[in-house]
Amino acid sequence: MKKSLKPTAVIFPLPVVLVSCQDKKGQNNIITISFIGVLNSDPPLISVAIRPNRYSHPIIKESNEFVVNIPSETMLKVTDFCGVASGKDINKFEAGRLTPISSEKVKAPSIAECPVHLECVVKQILPLGSHDLFIAEIVALRVDEAVLRPNQSSVDIQKILPFAYCPGGPGALEYWGLREFIGTYGFTKGKL
Amino acid sequence: MKKSLKPTAVIFPLPVVLVSCQDKKGQNNIITISFIGVLNSDPPLISVAIRPNRYSHPIIKESNEFVVNIPSETMLKVTDFCGVASGKDINKFEAGRLTPISSEKVKAPSIAECPVHLECVVKQILPLGSHDLFIAEIVALRVDEAVLRPNQSSVDIQKILPFAYCPGGPGALEYWGLREFIGTYGFTKGKL
Repeated sequence: MKKSLKPTAVIFPLPVVLVSCQDKKGQNNIITISFIGVLNSDPPLISVAIRPNRYSHPIIKESNEFVVNIPSETMLKVTDFCGVASGKDINKFEAGRLTPISSEKVKAPSIAECPVHLECVVKQILPLGSHDLFIAEIVALRVDEAVLRPNQSSVDIQKILPFAYCPGGPGALEYWGLREFIGTYGFTKGKL
Repeated sequence: MKKSLKPTAVIFPLPVVLVSCQDKKGQNNIITISFIGVLNSDPPLISVAIRPNRYSHPIIKESNEFVVNIPSETMLKVTDFCGVASGKDINKFEAGRLTPISSEKVKAPSIAECPVHLECVVKQILPLGSHDLFIAEIVALRVDEAVLRPNQSSVDIQKILPFAYCPGGPGALEYWGLREFIGTYGFTKGKL
């Protein structure tokens, strides 16, 4: 039997990423985001949704830049911390013992400890209600050599072990680990 | 050491969902989508990105409706099948032995075998290049009673065991299972 619930955006599993940015005084901040999605392959476009009252919101709106850093499961605690603490009160790089490193194409720093970095330039901002949607183009992609496959051109998920956001109990969210490879896209070859 | 790769939208893990739709003759179709993201909480908005040459594209563009059905890991094979086969050649409900059931607020059917259904009405279509982005509002949410928590108002991921898309080898994608709960959002209380 199906039961109707209040309509909410219960999509899962969602990615959990650390978005880094830099204000015009050169101060860095980090915000943890799960409202992120891929919009387009060519050009490569993604969106991140941020509430206007978040400390990073005006920084990204003014700088038009940010970096998406994908954390490993070993970074779970600092990822949660960056989602709960505010840059208003604390320098998250210092408090989280995270290392800002220069990015290739944007001023916003990358977070050294993360294995994957997508440097993004904002193309459009859509105010949608509770959140503003930042549509951005990926202008550079850098990854740790340690997580590359032998071909050196694609990442090995087994070496990254990312994690995901899922709905939890009432009003809560849960982190779930990706532990098991279960198949390659196209394994059915379109036949059952 | 960090290595630069060609900029692509390497965000992971991504959700994998079955999007069902109905054309004006009443024919149903299904397309597997991982380019889906949450855009806004209030109103609940999501986006799905679809290439214009996909069979479901004109159906959704004309009907302005679709249903996002979240599969369990037990549905991996049929999910892959629906992503590779085309509605041009085959009725995916019949071939995949999937059951179309009436939705609450839209004409597009829900897929009975999936535990979670989000009924969506398209609000805006953004042509972005390779894909068109369908921004849609969730107008109804239905879930299997069997996957609800005892409070009857939220889902139990342990009972659903969803899975995710991740980048694989060159040009490939992998499915990964979510097998382990690793924490609740906010467990650090913003302190390290």
